Amino acid sequence: MSSLHIGLDAGGSSTELLARASTESLSSPKEETRLQGDGANPERSGHAEAVGTLAELVGEAVRRHPATQLRSVCAGVAGAGSGERRQALAGRLHRALSEVAPRARVRLVHDARIALEAAFGNASGIIIIAGTGSAVFARTEAGTLERAGGWGYILGDEGSGYALGRAGLRAVARALDGGPATRLQALLSNTYGANSRAALVGNVYEAELPLQEAARTVLEAAAEGDAVAARILDEQTDALARQVAWLAEREATIAPQVVLFGGLTKNAHYVETLGRAVRGALPANCSVQPASCPPVAGALRLALREDPGREAASNAPEAPPVVSLCA
Amino acid sequence: MSSLHIGLDAGGSSTELLARASTESLSSPKEETRLQGDGANPERSGHAEAVGTLAELVGEAVRRHPATQLRSVCAGVAGAGSGERRQALAGRLHRALSEVAPRARVRLVHDARIALEAAFGNASGIIIIAGTGSAVFARTEAGTLERAGGWGYILGDEGSGYALGRAGLRAVARALDGGPATRLQALLSNTYGANSRAALVGNVYEAELPLQEAARTVLEAAAEGDAVAARILDEQTDALARQVAWLAEREATIAPQVVLFGGLTKNAHYVETLGRAVRGALPANCSVQPASCPPVAGALRLALREDPGREAASNAPEAPPVVSLCA
Repeated sequence: MSSLHIGLDAGGSSTELLARASTESLSSPKEETRLQGDGANPERSGHAEAVGTLAELVGEAVRRHPATQLRSVCAGVAGAGSGERRQALAGRLHRALSEVAPRARVRLVHDARIALEAAFGNASGIIIIAGTGSAVFARTEAGTLERAGGWGYILGDEGSGYALGRAGLRAVARALDGGPATRLQALLSNTYGANSRAALVGNVYEAELPLQEAARTVLEAAAEGDAVAARILDEQTDALARQVAWLAEREATIAPQVVLFGGLTKNAHYVETLGRAVRGALPANCSVQPASCPPVAGALRLALREDPGREAASNAPEAPPVVSLCA
Repeated sequence: MSSLHIGLDAGGSSTELLARASTESLSSPKEETRLQGDGANPERSGHAEAVGTLAELVGEAVRRHPATQLRSVCAGVAGAGSGERRQALAGRLHRALSEVAPRARVRLVHDARIALEAAFGNASGIIIIAGTGSAVFARTEAGTLERAGGWGYILGDEGSGYALGRAGLRAVARALDGGPATRLQALLSNTYGANSRAALVGNVYEAELPLQEAARTVLEAAAEGDAVAARILDEQTDALARQVAWLAEREATIAPQVVLFGGLTKNAHYVETLGRAVRGALPANCSVQPASCPPVAGALRLALREDPGREAASNAPEAPPVVSLCA
């Protein structure tokens, strides 16, 4: 009978699932299925709802592979918090999956863990996650997880969508006061009312528009040469690069290879600017590049590794990398 | 019969009342009463509660001056918003006072108006308000009100208690990541858990400790020579001084005299640093000094000026400045 292994990447706004059905033979064809569901951040939506979303996606994947046995599930969960909370959540997920997969191994890890796995497998390296928030993680040569940044929207998250958007709107406020003119004012006038004090204040404080949605406009204006927007982007990416440097200084046994994840790293100008800043902050032999595999591929790899039958049977060349999703 | 005039300064955390009982004769003795009540910000606590607080204070002042007739009330109200809202609030206040003072004139103005009156009377000048938030206002020679800054805690409020406190806590987060060491970490360890990531994050995001309460510590550390804290203070006061400069550039008919209001301006090191920044940003002939009269004294002056009987009777040397509260 074929085996089924499932990786999950549970984020705040959506959850990715990657399933692989395979026989033990390495030469037989593999079948991969990718599903997407709602966000499943237990800190935001509560444990029950997060677990419900994950279990539903797993159930759907199992239904699509009727002639398989689900052997292992690995979920990377954003905001799963400390070890204790994560364990409680893992127990809940295990119970929720007991019907569809009574014998499957269920593992729940920090979301950084699956991204590190996707980027470096077992090797050492550094990842930068730059989405609505931002954070830097590393895997040391001894395999421990280290972090810098990721302080949230009040205390930090430099270089994140929220920080870029907020800085852009602040620049607009300054322009309205008589400060440096910026194209951002015209570009944000429809969405944020950036042409008038009352409209801007109303949109930010009363309508509570998400500030991170202004980030795209800041990137656009910076790429077009707007000096104010370009300065914002430089300052923010420099601050994020500094976190990488601090982390690398703190731990000598981290390989100076950096992989970029997160929504912002789909923007070429952002990647170029952040890449320059990181190369400036690290030793000359460092490498910096956007991720070629999504975090969910790392989750699937961990799920494959988690399956004891599999290891025993194959006496194990390392589980082949998940390639279908990777560039 | 003696007349009673009342000024009110309604702020977010407390309301000040200043009452003066006097006869028409300028030479007769004046009696002043000062009362303090709860905050009365209509945007925060609602119109009904704000008006209730003001009416209660006025009633108490009237009871303390039984042999007088209340002739006029002027209230400076923080967050009274646009003209329309202010008018609705004024109508409500008028009705609330109709029992204690059926014939009194009731006026409700922007809180900046009473501070400008306290600082400059009818003359032109600039005020900086630096408390939990910050803002800059000016009265032009033509008597119109101009403003800069005051964008609230998300979009600005440079140089405010909130901005200083948040910057201090961000500096602590950076220090924990491996960035520049700062005495702020030790100084804020008891109150904000600044010695550990988990405690700091928990205090800011879960316990939602007010960030502005870290401002005093930032000022203390800056005064003691902590480089990180000193830089925060310089950056924040420079940004606030720039707002003053923009405002002065925008309107040529504003006298370059600056008076400082707000809780932060009770700190000598803050006043010194902000004063230096403002003098650096304005023409050489400018003056910068802390307020010698509280805003409520401006409200009382406006109340005195509001009384038509008074003007007609005295054929009017200008109402004498309120001196008892002023340095």
